[in-house]
Order: sequence, then structure tokens, then C-alpha cells
Amino acid sequence: MNSTRRYGRLFHLSRNINYSQQQQQRSIAIQRNNCCRHTITLDNINDNVKRLEYAVRGPLVIRAGVIENELRQSSNHHPKPFNEVIRANIGDCHAMGQRPLTFLRQVLACSSDDSLLNYPNYPDDVKERTRSILKYCGGQSVGAYSDSTGVEIIRKHCAEYITNRDGIESEWRDIALTTGASEGIRSVLALINTISTDTLPSGVMIPIPQYPLYSATITEYGMYPINYYLDEDNQWSLNIDELKRSLNEAKGKCKPKAIVVINPGNPTGSVLTKKNIEDIIHFAKENKILIIADEVYQHNIWDGEFFSFKKILNELNEDIELASVMSASKGYMGECGLRGGYCELVNFDQSVKAMFYKMLSARLCSSILGQIALDCIVKPPDVNGESYQQYQREKFDVLESLKYRAKLVADTFNEIPGIKSNKVAGAMYAFPQIDLPKKAQEKAAELGQKPDFFYAMNLLETTGICVVPGSGFGQIPGTYHFRTTILPQNEKLETMMKKFKEFHQNFMKQYS
Amino acid sequence: MNSTRRYGRLFHLSRNINYSQQQQQRSIAIQRNNCCRHTITLDNINDNVKRLEYAVRGPLVIRAGVIENELRQSSNHHPKPFNEVIRANIGDCHAMGQRPLTFLRQVLACSSDDSLLNYPNYPDDVKERTRSILKYCGGQSVGAYSDSTGVEIIRKHCAEYITNRDGIESEWRDIALTTGASEGIRSVLALINTISTDTLPSGVMIPIPQYPLYSATITEYGMYPINYYLDEDNQWSLNIDELKRSLNEAKGKCKPKAIVVINPGNPTGSVLTKKNIEDIIHFAKENKILIIADEVYQHNIWDGEFFSFKKILNELNEDIELASVMSASKGYMGECGLRGGYCELVNFDQSVKAMFYKMLSARLCSSILGQIALDCIVKPPDVNGESYQQYQREKFDVLESLKYRAKLVADTFNEIPGIKSNKVAGAMYAFPQIDLPKKAQEKAAELGQKPDFFYAMNLLETTGICVVPGSGFGQIPGTYHFRTTILPQNEKLETMMKKFKEFHQNFMKQYS
Repeated sequence: MNSTRRYGRLFHLSRNINYSQQQQQRSIAIQRNNCCRHTITLDNINDNVKRLEYAVRGPLVIRAGVIENELRQSSNHHPKPFNEVIRANIGDCHAMGQRPLTFLRQVLACSSDDSLLNYPNYPDDVKERTRSILKYCGGQSVGAYSDSTGVEIIRKHCAEYITNRDGIESEWRDIALTTGASEGIRSVLALINTISTDTLPSGVMIPIPQYPLYSATITEYGMYPINYYLDEDNQWSLNIDELKRSLNEAKGKCKPKAIVVINPGNPTGSVLTKKNIEDIIHFAKENKILIIADEVYQHNIWDGEFFSFKKILNELNEDIELASVMSASKGYMGECGLRGGYCELVNFDQSVKAMFYKMLSARLCSSILGQIALDCIVKPPDVNGESYQQYQREKFDVLESLKYRAKLVADTFNEIPGIKSNKVAGAMYAFPQIDLPKKAQEKAAELGQKPDFFYAMNLLETTGICVVPGSGFGQIPGTYHFRTTILPQNEKLETMMKKFKEFHQNFMKQYS
Repeated sequence: MNSTRRYGRLFHLSRNINYSQQQQQRSIAIQRNNCCRHTITLDNINDNVKRLEYAVRGPLVIRAGVIENELRQSSNHHPKPFNEVIRANIGDCHAMGQRPLTFLRQVLACSSDDSLLNYPNYPDDVKERTRSILKYCGGQSVGAYSDSTGVEIIRKHCAEYITNRDGIESEWRDIALTTGASEGIRSVLALINTISTDTLPSGVMIPIPQYPLYSATITEYGMYPINYYLDEDNQWSLNIDELKRSLNEAKGKCKPKAIVVINPGNPTGSVLTKKNIEDIIHFAKENKILIIADEVYQHNIWDGEFFSFKKILNELNEDIELASVMSASKGYMGECGLRGGYCELVNFDQSVKAMFYKMLSARLCSSILGQIALDCIVKPPDVNGESYQQYQREKFDVLESLKYRAKLVADTFNEIPGIKSNKVAGAMYAFPQIDLPKKAQEKAAELGQKPDFFYAMNLLETTGICVVPGSGFGQIPGTYHFRTTILPQNEKLETMMKKFKEFHQNFMKQYS
């Protein structure tokens, strides 16, 4: 397909409607007629909240939960042709069997119960780390609030980490510790949203496909998504002409404020080249927009090299604004549930940064234990410490295994006729394209479903494999995708891929 | 003063401007002229963010931090007539020396490092609790995401807690676990905010004085604060005529959506009577508005009795909507840094609740360790468990000591001529009124400061005691207050009160 034509098409962020939702809406209509007792109804709540979608946790995932419950409650008979649901829908490493880093968890335990500072089984460097952090906590307790921007020593360790990564001095006062990366992203978007004073909404350029946190938050905040397509034919790279096209099309519809870049890519599994990053920086400078760099997968590189936006900014000697976010949830640690993250504001006006921090203060602070988890990542055990060897081995093992799985997933998909995947060069996902037969598309239409939703729901009901349809991330109209994580452990992933292959062949047979 | 006249006065939420802020603004102006390189400037960011104020962490508190640093760096000479800053500005129990509950912290440690399930020093009920929770966590790890609404078993324990508290069945699916109570409050406000579709802003009735989270969030979201005054002459009770007056005055300026009630009161230290709550419920019903009950201090009752809004709703057989929030940060546990909390949606339309949960899903989930902390509070050790005695003793000791301090603070203030405090019947604060001499008011005006800010800053610079001026919470114009916590430990609090008395006498002498 001609790429100019493809890019030119109108794009709507797809909405997943499935039968359970339709049923729900019907029962709501009945409820409405029967009962007028409610003060707060669908008719008088925030319209933006009604419109927002978050497919990674949408109706398909809810259905997966129902199936899991059925399986649990029916140990004797078999309601399904499978024994378990494989949750390949969300980047949740530990849920898929990854073990935590020992050092990190020992520091958390020791920080929670400081009597463990006398526990002989814990290494000295765990105790030292705990002591050095608690010293900076109110009352030496993780139960005290920190500054809204986080515990000072941890912010300093983040700055050291960035300094070492990029070879450029990082300033700890530019770093705020946040509840995962999500809070940082949401807060930056809130900061630049001028809907209260402008007649046009504030525009944010986001990649398509994108991680739905962006579309959901943009909708919730009444901002305007400027969708730019990633180039599937070129390993999901970022095409500057496409950036120009999308920005041009948004003229008169919004005030462009920022461009979001996710590198390594979610859901695409791509890694941007240095040249690509340079081009984006020049583009942002020319158009006077903020760069929001979602760099939470910076440790998940299976092919190529990670370049931080900050490093390239510095190489180009540019001083435009950049907000870069990082998280404890991804990489080799995968501590999603601890909600640790940071946001670095690079080249920001001091007074604007002060406003950002003031806004954060009304949220009080992020979880201190989440902050401590992040500390253990940005400052691993010292080479002379007792925990060093184990930490390095655990890290290596996770990364090696993920690398194997990244290749396994892409290779297996490419062996299946009708499925085509780019290589998984980074992050934890593949986003393959599927050729859906006309008959399947018609069947989906009959059920009031998107074709890719229909496909994914069939996959779930037949095999127990839960993936997210491409419509949840955005895709060029007429193309169909799904996102799967590469997170099931090796053996389970091998089984999953085998089952997937079988399912797809049967599906194609049924609908061709 | 005649109370009708007092209520009738126009009220503006006060802004704290002090000299350091003024200096900052001056230097910003200089920066602006020197440098035009910034894309994001004070002129093009979110105006609501610029306007919001959060005094509990405002300029006075920033100054306190600076003084603390000076004290730390000058062990030889004495830059100040005191050795330490006493942070009575924020309800941060552990920072003021309160010790955590042993059971809670052992469960946190054990959940963080599950090898501690074999640690002989830990009681069996700690291990059982840990196992029972981890079973419900993805991959049996606190590093996995939970549902956006929280870990199922913990939501169920919250429901049991509420059922036991009120003697009415609570439904666990009505409960969402949140990042402290703050996230619950902010999310409920976001849900009912219809600024994107209405021409008038959404109005939220808030008490004056109030906890600044409300005014800050209302400003950030572009909502309209409908300020109702609490009745200082009657133990800060809530006067229904005043509710009517404030709602009436807001007519044509906003669409009233909700009333916020903080009980026990922050900053007032009041506890609402049953009759008062009944009246509020009738008022909310009549005016078709949601009740947002901030009940985070429900364990902090020193005089009177705590009645939950839910219980009274049920007694009155009313089925209007109520959102009630609770937190792990207050009570006898004071675990502010862990960020555990819940929000119960009572009598909500199912479809509206579904929208609320969908909105939460874009935040992924609150900290699992924060959720676990909450679990240990809503479900303390069983009476037959090994940890039972110690838990009860620790709880009793904290509450007894707080009760002593509540009385000490109010009594001491009332001994000081020119200061008048209501009794501290609940929560962790006193909000005394001060008679500021005319000369002091003039001096403040000369410095461009609010009189109560001037007083509080003098207190800080002279004694190291950090309180928050009344203007940060709102007060009837022409009256002056400050909020102090009752959290310094007994001996320190006694010293603090003595120093306070001295300071006040000298201040009055100086300015009379």
C-alpha cells in the first residue's frame, strides 16, 4: 500500500465495543427508566471520562478474568479447552513468573522493619543502603511523607545514574520521584494544558500505535491528540515527513504543545536510531514544542543501542525543553506494583519547574517504598559489596531470557502465514499485523465488533491467550494488529506460541 | 461579632505571598528579559496550575527547610536562638517520632522478601497474613500490578471493616484502593467535573477553614469552590443556614455538584454530632448533590463519638450518593509515606461506578505495599493471633498519648491572652484564633504579607516552630488563625507550648 495514501487517511482512535458492553448499556437503559433516584448519572458526569478508553485493561481483559474464575471454580469438569489464561496483555513481569532482585527486596524489607538491621542473614550492603536512605526519611521511617518531589538522597542517586548513563552532568533538583512513570507523564500533560484559557485545545503529538495511557489522559484532560503514524514497513521507525503531515493537519484544530516519543517502543518493540532522535529534536525545536520522552524501557534493548534524548540533545548542543520519564516497573526489575518512577525536566525555565513542583505538592508524595525500589535500580550494589555478584547475575539472567523470548516471539509469528511481525528490538512487546479474511471481518461486523477485537476474543476463548487488539493502540484503518508481551517464562511462552500457531491456522480455515 | 454579618462578607481564598516568593518573581522577570530561549514559560502553561495554592507545603515550610539546613551545617556557631525546627505544619506522625505498628511493618517486610516466611523471629500470624495476601497478587509478588481498584482480598477486608464499623453490609465491589485518600478525592472530583460540556463551572461546597487539597484540586480542575463557613463560636460545627446561604450565593456562578465534609475536622479538630450529619444529608438530598465525606481521622476521636455518613444515611433510610475516603496515613498508624487509602462509593449508579473505575485504570494501580498496610489496619491481628496483644497495646498507647496532647494543646492556648482555641475533639490539629494588634497588621502590610503569615513567620524565625497560617485554609476576613498539629511527642510538645507562650507574649509586647 502506498504510504502517502495510507498516512493521508483520516484516523479515529478506535473504541472497543463488545457484547458484554452492549449488554451493560442495555441494562443501564432499563435501569434509567425504572429508577430516577440517582443524582449522579451518565448524563451529568465528566464527558471526557466517559469517552476515554484504556484497552490494556478493557473488556477483553475483563472477560479473561471471568474465564479465570470459571476455571478456578471448576476443578472437576472442564468448561474450556485449556487450563489457564495466559495474560500476555500487560507488561506485568512478576505476574508472569519473573523473580524480583534479591538486593532490592531485602532493602525494602529492612526499610519496612528496621529490626532487620540486626538480621544476620542480610548482607552488610543491604543494611548500609537501608541506613543511608532512612537517614533522609522523616523520623527515619518510610511511614513519613517525603518532599513532594521525593527523598533527597534518592533524587541525587537518580541524577548520578543519569550522569553515568549519558556522560553529562545531571542536576538532582530537576528530578521528581513519581508514582510509576504514569504520574510523571500525566503531570507534565496537566502542566502544559491551557484549555482553561485558550479557545483551542492543547495539542499533543502521539505515535500511532501508542501506549493508551497517552490517548486516555489526553481525552480525560480535554487535550487534542495529534496522531502521527509510525512506519511499520521500516521497523516502526519515526518518519519526519509524517510528523510534518500530522502537525500540518492539526493546524487550526489545536495549539500544538508537545511531542511524545516512546523509545524503546510500546507497543511496537522498536528502538530509535540516533539519526531518528536527532531529526525529532530538530523538528521539536523548529515547531517550538516540548519533547516528552517515555524511556521506561531503556534497559530492554535486544538489538541496536539505546540513546537517551538528553544525551543527543547535548551532542547537538540544543537547549530545548525535554521531560524524560523512567520507571521501576520495566527493565530487568519489573517492579510494577511498587509504583516507583522519576521524571527529569531538562532545560526547563526555573519558574515553570517551580509551578510543576507546586502542582505535585497537592499529591503529597509518591510511595516511599516505591522510591526506595527505584534507588536500588539507579544505584545497584557497589562492586565491592556483598550483594554485587548476585545482583549482576540476576539482572543478566532476566535480560538474557527476555532477549531469547523477544526473538522467539517475532520469529514464530513470521513463520505463520497471514501474520507479519517486525523484530522485537526493544521493550517487551510484539505488535504483529494480521491479514483477516473478509469472512471474519463480516462476522465481526455482524457482532458489532472490530475485526481485530473479534480475532483476539476468539483467541482468548479458544486458547486462553489474552492479547490486546491493535485498535486499542491505534493502527492505520484497514490494517489489523494485536499486542502481545514477551513475558511468559520460556517454557510457557513456547507452549503459547505453539497454541497460537494452531489457533491461527484453524481461524483462517474457518473464515476463508 | 454578629454571625450573619460575618457570613455575609465576601470571601477570597487567601494567597500566601512572602518575601522569598516576591524575590523569586522579581528574578523571574529578570530572567524573562534576558532570555527568550524557553518554549514553555509562565505565559503559556496551565493557568489553573499557576493559581493553585497548597499552604501545608507552601513558602513558610520551604523557609523551615532552609533553616534546618543552616542548623545542620553550623554545629559550631549558632545562627538561630533554637537548635531544631519543630514541624507542626503537617500531619506527619512518624516524622514527629511516632513508632510504626510492629505487626504492620512485619507483614510489609515479609511481603517484600518472602524468604522471611521462614524467619523464626516473626510470629505465625504475620506469616499467615502475608501468605493470604500474596496468594491474591499476580505471581504471588508485590511487584505485580493489581486490578486498578486494588487487590481483591484487601477490598474485601475493607468491606468487612466498614460492615463491622457501621453494622450495615458493605459491598467490596464499591471500594477502590487508592494512593492515600488524596487520589480518591481527586478522582471523585474529576468524575463529576463537567467543565468540558457545561458553560458554568462545576461547583463544590467546601468548609472554610478547609484542608487545602480541596481548594488546590478545585483550582487545578477549573471547578468552582462554594465556600461555607464553619461556626467557630460553636466548636466549628456545621450550620445548615450557612450551607443554604453559600449555595444561594453561588447561584448563576456554577453548577453545584457536591458537598465536601471533613469529619473529624481538618484543620478544626472538630467532631460532627449525629444531628449535624443528619441535617447535612437532608440538605444534600434536597439540593441533589453528592456528599464527599473525608473520614480519614475516624480513629482520632478525643471527645464525642464518630458517626460515619454511611451509617447515618442508612438510619435515615436515604439512598443518596456518598463517597467516603479513608487512609493509612492518619489514625493510630500514621503511615503517610506508604500511600494506602480507599474510597467507598455508596448508592452509586452501576454505570457511573464503571466510569469511575475505567478512569482509575489509566493510573494502573496504587502501591501494593500501601494496599497491604491498609489491610493490616482494616483487619488487625485476630484475638487468637500471636501479634494481637502487642498490636492492641501499641494502638492504645498512641491513641492515649494523642488524647493527652490534644487536651494539652487546646488548654495551653487558652491560657495565653490573645489566643483562643476550640477543644481538639478529633483529628490531629488545633486551629486557634489570634488577636493580632494593629501595629503587627501594619508591619505585615508593609512587608506585603498577610498578618497571620507574618505572625507564623516570626514564630518560625524566633522559636523554630513551624505552623501554617490560617489564610492557607481560609478564614472569615479580619480574623486570624494558624493550624498546628498535636503530633510532637509529649516532652517536645510541652517544650513547644512553653516556647509558643513566651513568643506570643513577646510578640504582643513588641506590637502593642
